[in-house]
Parts: sequence; structure tokens; C-alpha cells
Amino acid sequence: MDRGVIVGIDLGATFIKAGLITQNGQIITQLQRLTEATQGRKKVVENIAFVIKHLIDNQKRDSILGIGIGSPGYVLNGQIVGGAENIKDWENVPLREIIEKRFSVPTFVDNDVNTVTLGEKVFGLGKRSKNFICITLGTGIGAGLVLNGQLYRGARGYAGEIGHTTVDYKGWLCNCGSRGCLEAYAGTEGILARAQVLLKKTPQSILRKSQERLTPKIICEAAKKGDPVAQEVVKEVGEYIGVGLANVVNLLNLDRVIIGGGISQAGRVILEPIKASLKRYTLNLGRKGLKVNLSILGARAGLLGSAVLVLEKMEQEVKNEREYLHF
Amino acid sequence: MDRGVIVGIDLGATFIKAGLITQNGQIITQLQRLTEATQGRKKVVENIAFVIKHLIDNQKRDSILGIGIGSPGYVLNGQIVGGAENIKDWENVPLREIIEKRFSVPTFVDNDVNTVTLGEKVFGLGKRSKNFICITLGTGIGAGLVLNGQLYRGARGYAGEIGHTTVDYKGWLCNCGSRGCLEAYAGTEGILARAQVLLKKTPQSILRKSQERLTPKIICEAAKKGDPVAQEVVKEVGEYIGVGLANVVNLLNLDRVIIGGGISQAGRVILEPIKASLKRYTLNLGRKGLKVNLSILGARAGLLGSAVLVLEKMEQEVKNEREYLHF
Repeated sequence: MDRGVIVGIDLGATFIKAGLITQNGQIITQLQRLTEATQGRKKVVENIAFVIKHLIDNQKRDSILGIGIGSPGYVLNGQIVGGAENIKDWENVPLREIIEKRFSVPTFVDNDVNTVTLGEKVFGLGKRSKNFICITLGTGIGAGLVLNGQLYRGARGYAGEIGHTTVDYKGWLCNCGSRGCLEAYAGTEGILARAQVLLKKTPQSILRKSQERLTPKIICEAAKKGDPVAQEVVKEVGEYIGVGLANVVNLLNLDRVIIGGGISQAGRVILEPIKASLKRYTLNLGRKGLKVNLSILGARAGLLGSAVLVLEKMEQEVKNEREYLHF
Repeated sequence: MDRGVIVGIDLGATFIKAGLITQNGQIITQLQRLTEATQGRKKVVENIAFVIKHLIDNQKRDSILGIGIGSPGYVLNGQIVGGAENIKDWENVPLREIIEKRFSVPTFVDNDVNTVTLGEKVFGLGKRSKNFICITLGTGIGAGLVLNGQLYRGARGYAGEIGHTTVDYKGWLCNCGSRGCLEAYAGTEGILARAQVLLKKTPQSILRKSQERLTPKIICEAAKKGDPVAQEVVKEVGEYIGVGLANVVNLLNLDRVIIGGGISQAGRVILEPIKASLKRYTLNLGRKGLKVNLSILGARAGLLGSAVLVLEKMEQEVKNEREYLHF
């Protein structure tokens, strides 16, 4: 058992990242393939199967402990329920069943924000924390929660929608139909909209001279170089994120906040305004001992977390066996 | 054991409510005494001891299973840490120790919002729910959370501060130093301030003619009678509460919301705007199957919940014993 490896899959809208991972979180082999998300579910499943086959072809079959997959959207019992807007037709896909049948290897599927959070819990900054949030900043804003040492999923598996918590109840309309959601301000669309508004007032910004299509990444880079518009945008975005996180910290008395996702790779330029805002909006008692950091796993969190799906299942089985022996 | 009774104490800023309670939640004897909160901790402890003595004097000592106390403020390991603004000097009080020494009966102390929530969990609408929030609307706004079937306390026992989650991040200053907190709008002070503003514009309101000092209760009564100012205030307050609750529902994917505390006794006049607002601000998926109700236990929740502190301890002991036998 100790020598076995796990196949981890991190399904994204652009790439499928996959790896052979040891039980202590070492990524032995890693590969990446285009998701081809616009081509719909058949093609996407095919691409997932392709990378799995590629990874296990040179392995002894009994050394493969399991396959773990993190997918966008809502996942219940290994089935993709829906809610993944960036992959065409990614609804009612019995992914677990399909992959298990194809490869005869135990397979586990979960939402990608959950797998990222599990990655942080077992191999990242969450290792020493029993109550933390892992927020993922990207096109959308999601979060995973570890409460009392366990990934918290909620009544029906939909927990973690921090992006749709309201920070300004009369504020901007959000795609979800509600108002003033964190995502409306600090998701990609919100960031770009705010930059456009500020750019009109400050034509000398280097952002305006940029030939590329504006992205949060370009804005963060410009902020690091001292561009005033970019700095203002990043400061405002950080403030909103801090308010949303403070709400969670006040409600749940967490001991740690981990910030992941694309925008977090901007580093201190985004971390500092988030921390300042968190400080302003958290209660004194709740703030005591609270740690706030950028993810140290970065993009690897999802891949490692998909392996954790398999590891947790194995732990559970060992536990059940023990209880059985006691009976 | 089955015939034993529990002493439950619900410590409030005005009254100490106390009762002899059976294991299935029947309140056999109930009594009430002034807290005399302004006289400081010595007097308050004396008053608590007085009601306990009174309740157990005619009972066989070995029929008393335990004493449970719900207290305002932060409680750690049976000790009042602080944070109870309405009882003078209610800080660093080793209440558990004091009461146990005095009566030689196992004693358990917890925060009063936690005991209310435990009351709802075991004897109220929370009975059939594994993931719910119990919000208490009063001078301040607090909440207890039951997640995965367990009362959730957070990293250091400070969870539940929904009153200090921000619904309007550039909004009113709150007593806590932060901005736009739910409590700043929907706590007693916020409600009265808003009523005063609206009253200036509408002098014909019956609230203006009221000889009594304005309270949330009087405003709710006037709203029921159709007073336009009172109705506007209640509608706005309900909307804020709904936004705050929607944030929690979206984050935690709860299956139930229970609304308790003084203002909840106004009934539908406050429930309806809360429900309307919750509907507007929750995600479709998270709203499915969500139940929103006023507490059916009302003021008894705290008393019953303090008994649950003892019941849970007893359950734990039975469980430990079973595990011991298996070893």
C-alpha cells in the first residue's frame, strides 16, 4: 500500500492538469491537456480519460490507489450536477461512474474549490488549522471551509458561496440576480469594469497604453510598477475582499484565511489591502490569533487536493476496519 | 437516572429565569428573580445561587442530574471571559467552579445564544435539521450555528457574531468600530434611530402620539395596526436581517433559519419582510428546501437549552463508557 500512487485530476475550463501523486503529496509525473470546454461533455470526458490512461499506462495496475478529480460546478456523489458555466453541457455527468468503469480504479469526484481546500488542509497552510477558509479569486470567487478539522459541505453540498455574499446591499447587480455580491466587485468582470471607469479619468495610466486586452493580471502588474489607476483598482478590490472575509471570520471565528486563485499570484500588492480591510472589519476578539496568508501551494493546490479525496477515503476505510474489529 | 431533573438557568440582564426541567424538556417548576445587573458580579452570583437553592431545596440531592447556565458574554470552560456589556463587572467570573463548589452538583456554563440554539436543536424547530442558524434579535443581534448536527463554536468559542457582519460596507458606524454591521441597522438602537428619522417626515404617525418611550415592541405593535412609519421601519429592518441571513445561507448552505429573540415575538409583521429579503438575496440552489420560521419555543429556548448543556454531557459520558467497554 505504502508504495502506491494516486492519479490526481484538476479539471479547469482551459486545461486539464493531471499528475501521479504519492501519499505524502509528491507529484511524480505531471501533464496537462487542453480541456476543449466549448466542445461539450463527450470531448471533455474523453480528454480526462486520455490523461488518466497516459499516466497509468506504465504503472502496475495494483499500485494505483485511486483516481481523484476536482471539477468546476456542483458535485453530488461523484456526479456533476451542474453550475459549471465555463464548460459546455457539464451537467448530469456521472463522472465517477464513467471513469471507474473505464479504468476499474476507485474514483472520487468533488467540486474544484473543495479539492483546492483539501489540498491546503493536508499539504498547505491549513495543516495546523482546524477552522479556516480558503478563498479562490478568479473569474468567479469561491471558498472552501474547514470547520472543526473537516471540510464543510453544507446541507446539500453547496456551501462556500462567499462570492455571492452581499457586502453592499444596494450595490451593483450581480450575475446571480442579487445585489452587491462580493463577486460583482472583485470577480474578473467587476475588476475590469472598475478599471475602465477609473481609466477615463486618468488617461496617462500605463494601462491605457497597453496593447493587450486588459486582465486582472495586467492590472496587478501595473500596480506593482506604481501605476496610480491600477493601484487604486487593486486597493478597492482588496477592500471588498476583506469585507467579505471579515464577515466570515466574525461569523465563524476562524483561525486562518488562505488566499488562492489566479489573482492571488499578484502577491503582496493584493494581500496588503485585503489584510488592512480585514483588520478594519473584524471584531477584536475574532481577530486575535487570526493568520492571513497567500496560498503557498498556488496552482498545485487543486491537483494535490484531488489526491486527498483518495487519501481521505483510504483513511475512512482503515477507521471502519478498526471499528469492525472492535465490534 | 431516568427520574432525575436538571436545573436550568437563563441569565439575562434584567431577569434570571430558572427551572427544574425533565430530560424530555418539560419544565416542572419555573421561577424568576431580578438579576440586579448594575450591582456587579457578587450580587449577580448571589442571585443565581438563590434561585438554584430555591429550586433544589425540596429535591433529593441525587435526583439533580446537573446545573446548566446560559450567560451573556464569552464563556470558555465554564468561565465568563467578558463581553457582557449589560451586566456590571461580568468578567473573569469562574461561574462553573463557584456553583459546583456551592452545590456539589456538576455544572455547565455556556454563552446564552449557544444555549438558545441548543434549546432549538433538541426541543424546537432544529430537531429535524442538521445545518441551521438560530438568530436572536434584541438589543444586540447574535446567532448560534448548528453545523453537521453539532453546535459550532469556532476556533476560540467566539463564533456566531452575525450582528457584526457587514451588509453595507460604507454604511452606518457600529458600536464595534466597524461599518455597516447588521446590528447597526437592526439592533434596538438602529431601529429607534431609523424610526426617529422617519417620524420627522410623518408627524401624523401614531408613534408620535405615544406617551411611552419608543421601543421596538411598540413599533412592531404600531406596524400591525397599519401605522405607515412603523411599517416602513419594520420593512427596512426585515430587509437588513434578510441580507445578513442570506449571506450565511449562501456561505453555509443551511437547511433552516430560526428567528428568535424579543423582536421575533412581533410575529408575521417581522417574519414576512425577512423572508422576502432572504428570497431576493439567496442563490437559487441554496434556497431550495430552506425553511424559515419564527422560534416556537420563544423565551423558553434559553431555559431548555441550559438543560441541554447537562443532557449533552450525559450523552457524552454514556458514549465514552461504551468506547471504554470496546477497548
